Amino acid sequence: MDLKEAGIGEGISEVIVTTQSAAGMPNAAPIGIITEIDDEQQGKPKHFVKLYKGSQTLENVLETSTVVANVTDDAVLFVKTAFGHLSELYLSDFAGVPVLTKANAWIVFTSVLIEERDDYFYFQVRPRTVKISRKEVKAINRGLNAVIEAAILATRFSPATNEQERTEMRKRVAEYAEIVEKCGGRREKEAMGILREKCSQLFTHV
Amino acid sequence: MDLKEAGIGEGISEVIVTTQSAAGMPNAAPIGIITEIDDEQQGKPKHFVKLYKGSQTLENVLETSTVVANVTDDAVLFVKTAFGHLSELYLSDFAGVPVLTKANAWIVFTSVLIEERDDYFYFQVRPRTVKISRKEVKAINRGLNAVIEAAILATRFSPATNEQERTEMRKRVAEYAEIVEKCGGRREKEAMGILREKCSQLFTHV
Repeated sequence: MDLKEAGIGEGISEVIVTTQSAAGMPNAAPIGIITEIDDEQQGKPKHFVKLYKGSQTLENVLETSTVVANVTDDAVLFVKTAFGHLSELYLSDFAGVPVLTKANAWIVFTSVLIEERDDYFYFQVRPRTVKISRKEVKAINRGLNAVIEAAILATRFSPATNEQERTEMRKRVAEYAEIVEKCGGRREKEAMGILREKCSQLFTHV
Repeated sequence: MDLKEAGIGEGISEVIVTTQSAAGMPNAAPIGIITEIDDEQQGKPKHFVKLYKGSQTLENVLETSTVVANVTDDAVLFVKTAFGHLSELYLSDFAGVPVLTKANAWIVFTSVLIEERDDYFYFQVRPRTVKISRKEVKAINRGLNAVIEAAILATRFSPATNEQERTEMRKRVAEYAEIVEKCGGRREKEAMGILREKCSQLFTHV
């Protein structure tokens, strides 16, 4: 099953994964789906995820061996799921698993543990069910990109970060905020506003 | 006419514009289409472009008052059109104007000069004809974003840039190259390779 049509191409596809615990409690988090094309096997793609220890996504995947990739370009959803619990109002049920109602495509994967590393588990994920809800045309918006990069920085910003790194990160985030202001639409600006609230230490002046 | 369905949303949409001279010679260049939503006019969008003096795009638009936005997420096309002439093999004719054959949507605009500034002309552009060729689902790829940012930096890198700025720009581009290596697909890697060739000074080690 080639997932390209569902938006998962070669390299790392940034998606929001939804999972649930064995008890049925849903969770959503931004994750990269790693896709490798094996040229020796007629270009057949293989998909993988790294799930970090301590994350709810990892807990759930260890319990259920199921992970859904929700393909979306909604900046607000990326920021909300990176910082805190997403309201169940955003979720629907698809083939017994939680999905983001408004995603453009859902890919339900079965996970197979490949290896455990110091700080993460590495899984191969195999598509089980695919649903494409909405195809669209969308021009590149640098504001959207800037929100994603800022959110990634924000998830790496911790009390443990040393002062020099913090200064560098704040400088970057200020630049991303400027790009969002200049190039983003209101969805990107709203996302940056949420990030600013959730991670105010990253936005103190440089 | 709301262009959102054709991929042009609020903020700045990065597209490749195609134009032609009065004599019919085509040109392609990456440009941002600026879209402002006027809340006082029932959210009706207005579109603008800044065209820099000395650019072929500006020359052509002054001659023909016509500019086509080609919506695409092909990293290679962005890099190729940012640096040098795009082969006519990539172009087709649509309603008498040149378009990028493989773009997902074409919007033919009529331009109206709003004002001349020191280094650019500012035009309002009004959609005349729209054609959507291909809708798709595509997950965010940080590698694609990194190519676009690197290409923008590259177009700003000139012999006039001072040494401190150059060092900073090289550092950034090295980071973008790393993101492309990690997250991009082969199209993004090919684009970064072309950028490296076209702007080798930006890739010398930091």
